[in-house]
Amino acid sequence: MFTNLEHLGLAVQDLEEATKLYTILLGMEPYKRESVASEGVDTVFFKVGGSKIELLGGTTPDSAITKFVAKKGEGIHHVAFEVADIRATMARLREQGFTLLNEEPKRGADNKLVCFVHPKSAHGVLVELCQEMSSPDLDVE
Amino acid sequence: MFTNLEHLGLAVQDLEEATKLYTILLGMEPYKRESVASEGVDTVFFKVGGSKIELLGGTTPDSAITKFVAKKGEGIHHVAFEVADIRATMARLREQGFTLLNEEPKRGADNKLVCFVHPKSAHGVLVELCQEMSSPDLDVE
Repeated sequence: MFTNLEHLGLAVQDLEEATKLYTILLGMEPYKRESVASEGVDTVFFKVGGSKIELLGGTTPDSAITKFVAKKGEGIHHVAFEVADIRATMARLREQGFTLLNEEPKRGADNKLVCFVHPKSAHGVLVELCQEMSSPDLDVE
Repeated sequence: MFTNLEHLGLAVQDLEEATKLYTILLGMEPYKRESVASEGVDTVFFKVGGSKIELLGGTTPDSAITKFVAKKGEGIHHVAFEVADIRATMARLREQGFTLLNEEPKRGADNKLVCFVHPKSAHGVLVELCQEMSSPDLDVE
């Protein structure tokens, strides 16, 4: 079950510059910064209502974010939906013919287990499924 | 003040096909369909938590959505934030150097007054400001 539009990920060239601009645009300070070394990204989070804006800056040449910005320019990279049970949702989507980019949920930023759905399965949209790691029914590896 | 990530607009080639797919992906039926003839778009809305997914299909060759899909392919078209006072937010952003695509708020889908911020002002993201038309402090033309 999709319970919330948890966050929107924006790929940017210069994370500090983008953070300054979004602080002015949204009229609020970011509430969190986090590095995800395994993905080669630094992240900055803003909270808008029940959702988050996640600015993503690539930190290595082979980071997915660095490649995205080089190929397509800055812009919206993915949309993440909170799901009640990520493994159950993954199983359902696989059965219904969607292509998932992860075999198993992986650790993402913001204390989440995540899995991506291929944009070709979703009319050009990179969809992330995420579930809070503190969820009681979660099977953390 | 930005109070909610109100909706995410997805530009698609074939609205019926995309509606079927998103019905399966999100595991829910859309709750509304609406045509905005002035913009040359048909829309289909899904509700996920406190936000909406708006599928957008162009109905004329010169619709912004038709052109977007022809140029960039299907995908995320814009993100819309609910603001408490659209005119005040527009005035603030103009003063702070953002480029707005509308001089005055215009009527959008879903009973909203809307205004777009140029993607060049927001690191490649087409940002929509929106305010419910039934809001008490709204100056409707």
